[in-house]
Amino acid sequence: IESRDVDALRALVADLHESDLARLLEALPPADRPQLIELLGSDFDFTALTELDETVRVQILEELPTQTVVEGVRELESDDAVYILEDLDDADKQEILAHLPIPERAALQRSLDYPEESAGRRMQTEFIALPPFWTVGQTLDYVGETEGLPETFFEVFVVDPTYRLTGSVPLDRLLRTKRGVKLGEVVTPDRHVVNATDDQEDVARVFERYNLISSPVVDDAGRLVGVLTIDDIVDVIQEEADEDLKALGGVAGDEELSDSFWYIARSRFSWLLLNLIAANLASFVISLFEGELERMVALAVLMPIVASQGGNAGTQTMTVAVRALATRELRASNARRVVARELLVGLFNGVVFAVIMAVVVFARFGIADLGFVIALAMIINLLAAAFGGIMIPLTLDRLKVDPAVSSGPFVTTVTDVVGFFAFLGIASLWF
Amino acid sequence: IESRDVDALRALVADLHESDLARLLEALPPADRPQLIELLGSDFDFTALTELDETVRVQILEELPTQTVVEGVRELESDDAVYILEDLDDADKQEILAHLPIPERAALQRSLDYPEESAGRRMQTEFIALPPFWTVGQTLDYVGETEGLPETFFEVFVVDPTYRLTGSVPLDRLLRTKRGVKLGEVVTPDRHVVNATDDQEDVARVFERYNLISSPVVDDAGRLVGVLTIDDIVDVIQEEADEDLKALGGVAGDEELSDSFWYIARSRFSWLLLNLIAANLASFVISLFEGELERMVALAVLMPIVASQGGNAGTQTMTVAVRALATRELRASNARRVVARELLVGLFNGVVFAVIMAVVVFARFGIADLGFVIALAMIINLLAAAFGGIMIPLTLDRLKVDPAVSSGPFVTTVTDVVGFFAFLGIASLWF
Repeated sequence: IESRDVDALRALVADLHESDLARLLEALPPADRPQLIELLGSDFDFTALTELDETVRVQILEELPTQTVVEGVRELESDDAVYILEDLDDADKQEILAHLPIPERAALQRSLDYPEESAGRRMQTEFIALPPFWTVGQTLDYVGETEGLPETFFEVFVVDPTYRLTGSVPLDRLLRTKRGVKLGEVVTPDRHVVNATDDQEDVARVFERYNLISSPVVDDAGRLVGVLTIDDIVDVIQEEADEDLKALGGVAGDEELSDSFWYIARSRFSWLLLNLIAANLASFVISLFEGELERMVALAVLMPIVASQGGNAGTQTMTVAVRALATRELRASNARRVVARELLVGLFNGVVFAVIMAVVVFARFGIADLGFVIALAMIINLLAAAFGGIMIPLTLDRLKVDPAVSSGPFVTTVTDVVGFFAFLGIASLWF
Repeated sequence: IESRDVDALRALVADLHESDLARLLEALPPADRPQLIELLGSDFDFTALTELDETVRVQILEELPTQTVVEGVRELESDDAVYILEDLDDADKQEILAHLPIPERAALQRSLDYPEESAGRRMQTEFIALPPFWTVGQTLDYVGETEGLPETFFEVFVVDPTYRLTGSVPLDRLLRTKRGVKLGEVVTPDRHVVNATDDQEDVARVFERYNLISSPVVDDAGRLVGVLTIDDIVDVIQEEADEDLKALGGVAGDEELSDSFWYIARSRFSWLLLNLIAANLASFVISLFEGELERMVALAVLMPIVASQGGNAGTQTMTVAVRALATRELRASNARRVVARELLVGLFNGVVFAVIMAVVVFARFGIADLGFVIALAMIINLLAAAFGGIMIPLTLDRLKVDPAVSSGPFVTTVTDVVGFFAFLGIASLWF
């Protein structure tokens, strides 16, 4: 790049897949990234930008001259173009749109007008829609001879004169049908038609559940407006799983490995602050029993065990509940059964660990009563953990709050508070 | 079902998609499930079984008469048949295979001979392979007129006389090429050919990275043996994300919502036992400072805060590290940078929370020195959390141990032990 040896660079990237080109960009120092793109000019495939982390992509787009971005975006399929534009701030977005020819601008603008994370944002607006009276032969000839069709497609759609979707005909069926047959006779209505305003997560569930490869997208009036393909959906599935996993670990769903120190420190801080408040609450509970702790220091030594065991058991139950809610496996119809089972598991493991700890404590301190106290506290806390672990996500879900993001602090607060309170409380009554 | 009203049942399921049929089965009491399948006879689509949880599927298959299973399996595509058979125990598997006609048996047996979770297990062995000297016209006619082709396909493969893969031609390209052109002239070699012994997780990464819809599968000699489609891969992606998420929450990757109480209680128990050992280790650390705790009960009240804050910060770092390792975003090339950043974040948040807690403690207990002690312990533990949170997953990954499964207990042990030791240790030196 430094020597501006364009020919060598072009030769280097000519054979690269867009994903590999994206990796190459990420490996470069930030300042060199826009430079490489400019040097390559039209040899740079803007599709590569869709494979980058958001932070890196926005940084590159902001540094590139508008004209370069406009030309790059024009080469893209509509879904990729939307993907690249949607993260830019409004001013930049409008500037780029203003430089596009009117039909392309209108199409992109319409996609961008759909809500964030909706099917309308992810769909491709290039597709083949034909009337039902066309024959298979006509269709095959049309597909074979027309320029400017979508780059890849798996089916043709059949629409009525008002562009309402009748159904679709997959390419392999088209090939296996006699040329004289009319499309109207071989078309099958799509079992699940996606609405452009549907949330991408719901759409992903439909794709997974019915093993779809692609699906037409219609507007509220039932008119065909685009097509969603599975490769876009794979990214959605991956993203959603990613967000849930990170949320459960107390990390913002959009944190990326390429984010700056400052962004990460701030985003992790808020979660830790919440935890600090919870920990102070638990500490307050402990302080209620200062007298007991002074009289019997063994209580201070043992109390974190009950709390920690509850925290882990609660996290187990919560993890299962959050995941099952996300995949819609946990529904109102089976919630009662799952809650009952979790409580039973909590009780069972509570009793087992109660026995183990009673023995350990007796061996360590030689006080049988202390073993009994910790055993009772263990059972109570593991039951509380099971109850909190399942009821908190269920309740948050019913309140339309994402249980993956918010369950953790509540559950550990419950297990800490109940753990310390049960152990020290029983001890204060006993001794 | 009770009234054995077969006609009504048939009418009921006739229009159901296999996924909905699977849901219906799951909603039934276990004893009724095989009964429904028998009543429906050949109207029951065995594909529905692939959409069930493993536990439910195995239970149904074990109760059905062998002959019913054999007939059902014969109707399936090869990948679905393998999916259904692979979880059965060897005796049942062999019995069913023995009842199949020899060619089908051999094909299934070959797929089952590939290692578990390999591409060979997931692939479909029905595909269209043609020689390069065929013309596009010939191909289109062949596809249009031959019976018994795969139910759905997106491309034809071109092979040499020894069945070695040359490449593939997608259907849409086939349609857009003149009939006289030879396949050898339009074929493109596949950029990434999957080997039948490749691990399904690695295959899923390739599909995601290159946005593939389907990919040929070859054996070690480069001969075409099957085709993998994205809908199978979506399940793999979903499963792998699921396993990581559950593992981080301390739950076995294969725990399903339909599992029995007994199975779940046992599988969660082992993780909790590990945690109990870690908690007892932390408790032992506390017991080293019994003297200090007796002299100053405020130490007992405050010590869980430092440990808890470290545990959460460590979990944050670990979650990011585990996920980035799973998606191959965290590599040797950027590990150093990520470790440095995590330590910086740990230091930063450590200092911020140190200041907050110093103020809180001074306000609560009026002892300035105690505030200073907790502040110092907080910084040390948040640094330890960052270090453990990133180095433990990296080390486990290098040792070929799945970091998602094993990192958690190590990280919280580190933060608990360091947290209690730092706080109580500094206090014992200070006061």
